[in-house]
Amino acid sequence: MELFFLGTGAGIPAKMRNVTAMALKLLEERGSVWLFDCGEATQHQILHTSLKPRRVEKIFITHLHGDHIYGLPGFLSSRSFQGGESKVTIYGPKGIKEYVETSLSVSQTYLKYPLQIIEVDDGIVFEDEQFLVEAKLLEHGISSYGYRVVEKDRPGVLLVDKLKETGIQPGPIFKRIKSGERVTLEDGTVLDGKDFTGPDIKGRVVTILGDTRSCEASRQLAQDADLLVHEATFSQGEEKLAHEYFHSTTVQAATIAKEANVRKLCLTHISSRYDREASKILLNEARKVFATTEMAEDFKEIIIPLQK
Amino acid sequence: MELFFLGTGAGIPAKMRNVTAMALKLLEERGSVWLFDCGEATQHQILHTSLKPRRVEKIFITHLHGDHIYGLPGFLSSRSFQGGESKVTIYGPKGIKEYVETSLSVSQTYLKYPLQIIEVDDGIVFEDEQFLVEAKLLEHGISSYGYRVVEKDRPGVLLVDKLKETGIQPGPIFKRIKSGERVTLEDGTVLDGKDFTGPDIKGRVVTILGDTRSCEASRQLAQDADLLVHEATFSQGEEKLAHEYFHSTTVQAATIAKEANVRKLCLTHISSRYDREASKILLNEARKVFATTEMAEDFKEIIIPLQK
Ligand SMILES: [Zn+2]
Ligand SMILES: [Zn+2]
Repeated sequence: MELFFLGTGAGIPAKMRNVTAMALKLLEERGSVWLFDCGEATQHQILHTSLKPRRVEKIFITHLHGDHIYGLPGFLSSRSFQGGESKVTIYGPKGIKEYVETSLSVSQTYLKYPLQIIEVDDGIVFEDEQFLVEAKLLEHGISSYGYRVVEKDRPGVLLVDKLKETGIQPGPIFKRIKSGERVTLEDGTVLDGKDFTGPDIKGRVVTILGDTRSCEASRQLAQDADLLVHEATFSQGEEKLAHEYFHSTTVQAATIAKEANVRKLCLTHISSRYDREASKILLNEARKVFATTEMAEDFKEIIIPLQK
Repeated sequence: MELFFLGTGAGIPAKMRNVTAMALKLLEERGSVWLFDCGEATQHQILHTSLKPRRVEKIFITHLHGDHIYGLPGFLSSRSFQGGESKVTIYGPKGIKEYVETSLSVSQTYLKYPLQIIEVDDGIVFEDEQFLVEAKLLEHGISSYGYRVVEKDRPGVLLVDKLKETGIQPGPIFKRIKSGERVTLEDGTVLDGKDFTGPDIKGRVVTILGDTRSCEASRQLAQDADLLVHEATFSQGEEKLAHEYFHSTTVQAATIAKEANVRKLCLTHISSRYDREASKILLNEARKVFATTEMAEDFKEIIIPLQK
């Protein structure tokens, strides 16, 4: 599981930072990629990576400001043009359906794959055996959501050596034991799968927030997350401006990370007012409050490791 | 007057060619720039040029396919964000208004300048003292227009030396004479402005076509143009495919240029199937039919000189 930044700027594209988009790579976990936001030219950024549009299974939109959605129609069309056939589901605030459907219909774009658009509210917006995604409304003037992606715990690894000591040969039975089943052998012996698997593998939690003021909903979504992605549109000391424009400062983001006890914080939505040097200062402001903070950069990848 | 290519590809963006957009630079003529089409990431391309979004006065959209319009909402928003205050007028086929207005309203984008959207039909879509723009429907399945931009003829240069020989001192009277007026001097002498100006300066004609099959409307729009921009989505010999997909081949474009007696032809809308080498072959196919053909490239500028 890796988070790959496709755009880390604020408001308008700049040479160093494109407008917002992130790809949560779940290739090992489920052979797919989930996008979070899709600012203009996200598909152009993807051209410079190894990401495959046809792998994109879900797109979570935090809010409808142009710098977070104007790349959506182009991405969807090109995915079709390039032969993508599997279904895509878009999650986003009310209005996302009208925007996507109008853009596709006016341009007479007919996708060759099924497209589902789900307008979200607070609560669980997606769940299967592997993952659960929870949305919560933040504070950004316009409806802006944060998403908490929860990977479910999995049964531990099969203790192959211990199993072999019982004399059983590798085969389908291994799989049943691995899933924790109780299995009765031909000779009547009963094996409890739990005795032959290591401890449960703890699932990871990634919290990706839309633009927001510092708020309680962020803290809740971020609680104990392995990775929190929080905007930092303003510098320390600009709390008043941040509040006025419904954004956060570096220090506010770091404070949320600390209070929510996350493992790692990554700052994004960096204004083009800050060049490479200035963005180091931003990072240091946050690190004073929360040490394991990183700064997002276009084309940077953050690995989210399993916890031992 | 120069035509600057911002995107010269077909259908989807590629590393070498972005999707369609062109800037007709009328800086000397009227201090402004007119865009023709605005595919996704046109504003990103502009970041790498000296073009100023606030200079953009008019945007002509040929047709509503995504690769020609998906950059419009982002361009309009960023122009406002960057302080553009002067009015912008968009001309395009029916549907352009719904697309732009939905994109801006869903994203709660409030432009700080007046925006007018004019849905065009065949005929003159704009005229002032300097320029006239005529639109005509082409053949592309979806409504696709070609635009003929006509610069009006201007009075010739003032023959200063000849005027000085009459003994008149430079001053406001020069301006009246230059505009071709008959002027009566204090001593009763009558001077005819026409005797003191060179021949009329012939205005230029630039014809920019949307995607189209080879058709009669193109020929009419291109008649005697200084520059014709014609798509060439297919190679020579692929006439059947071109017809089926409502596009043109290199040779069809060159034939229109020849029959319409244009001075220069520029091919664009080049498929990413053709790399740099292959695109030289495309150019040569056209040049065999019409010698003064050029190939559009992203960031290439074509100067449109006055005719002596
Ligand atoms: Zn926003
Ligand atoms: Zn087209």
